[in-house]
Amino acid sequence: MGTNNLLMHRDTCFMDKAIALANASSRSGRNGPFGAVVVKGDRLLGEGVNHVVQRRDPTAHAEVMAIRAACRTLRSHSLDGCTLYSSCEPCPMCLAAAYWARIERIVFACTRRDAAEAGFDDDAIYRELPLPWPRRQMKFRQIRRRAGLKTLEIWKNNPAKRPY
Amino acid sequence: MGTNNLLMHRDTCFMDKAIALANASSRSGRNGPFGAVVVKGDRLLGEGVNHVVQRRDPTAHAEVMAIRAACRTLRSHSLDGCTLYSSCEPCPMCLAAAYWARIERIVFACTRRDAAEAGFDDDAIYRELPLPWPRRQMKFRQIRRRAGLKTLEIWKNNPAKRPY
Repeated sequence: MGTNNLLMHRDTCFMDKAIALANASSRSGRNGPFGAVVVKGDRLLGEGVNHVVQRRDPTAHAEVMAIRAACRTLRSHSLDGCTLYSSCEPCPMCLAAAYWARIERIVFACTRRDAAEAGFDDDAIYRELPLPWPRRQMKFRQIRRRAGLKTLEIWKNNPAKRPY
Repeated sequence: MGTNNLLMHRDTCFMDKAIALANASSRSGRNGPFGAVVVKGDRLLGEGVNHVVQRRDPTAHAEVMAIRAACRTLRSHSLDGCTLYSSCEPCPMCLAAAYWARIERIVFACTRRDAAEAGFDDDAIYRELPLPWPRRQMKFRQIRRRAGLKTLEIWKNNPAKRPY
């Protein structure tokens, strides 16, 4: 097989793993119908299924769970060079988590609009985020900026700081 | 005091708590210089500081930690009616987490641009998210949509499902 065929084959294999995880969740009905895996080369570093309801944790999306599991495997907060496979296009929380984790590439199956039709708010949150905060549905207030800036100053001037 | 004065006083008190958490983190230098608390009425439900480096978890931002702590306190994945106080405007991951958690209101001190000047990528991720995926810096591929849709179908038709 050529490089492209090999990559396509690998993508299909790992996507089928993510979808199998999602299917198990869909059949149980206990959590959201989403699954994800994080892979480096041919090595599966972490897997995740949606656990929002069971763990009572709104951040326990499949992709976040897979990213956290992969970080535990590598003992690092960086997943540089890794691919995230998800049964559905990541929501803004999971996509931003992938950026923070330095994920290199994301492969997904169904889209945010497919998720919206199943009753998940991803698309609505995608529309809110780019708006300036006075125009969002969420209420915002800014206070004490000077005190907040002082915190950043203390950090910047701390020779022991560990940037990430 | 009038209602507005009372609210302003409460906002200042809880913001000072979030900033105190951030300051402790800035002084130790072990993690990012951010702190957050989740409050319902006058009750502090959860607090969080950035723990990315120490926990080797790129999702362990102050706001995510505070949201998860508050959910544990309430034994619920919903923080309906709660306010999130953060020493800095939330990054897209934390903001989306607040939407998923049904947070009602966000009070913040310094801004995403202040964070960018201290070396944190929030603003860059805010610019990436609204772009269609072929135009982002992150690489994307979509495959197996039909199999992904089947997962959502199984869930939609499952009478035992627990929507959130």
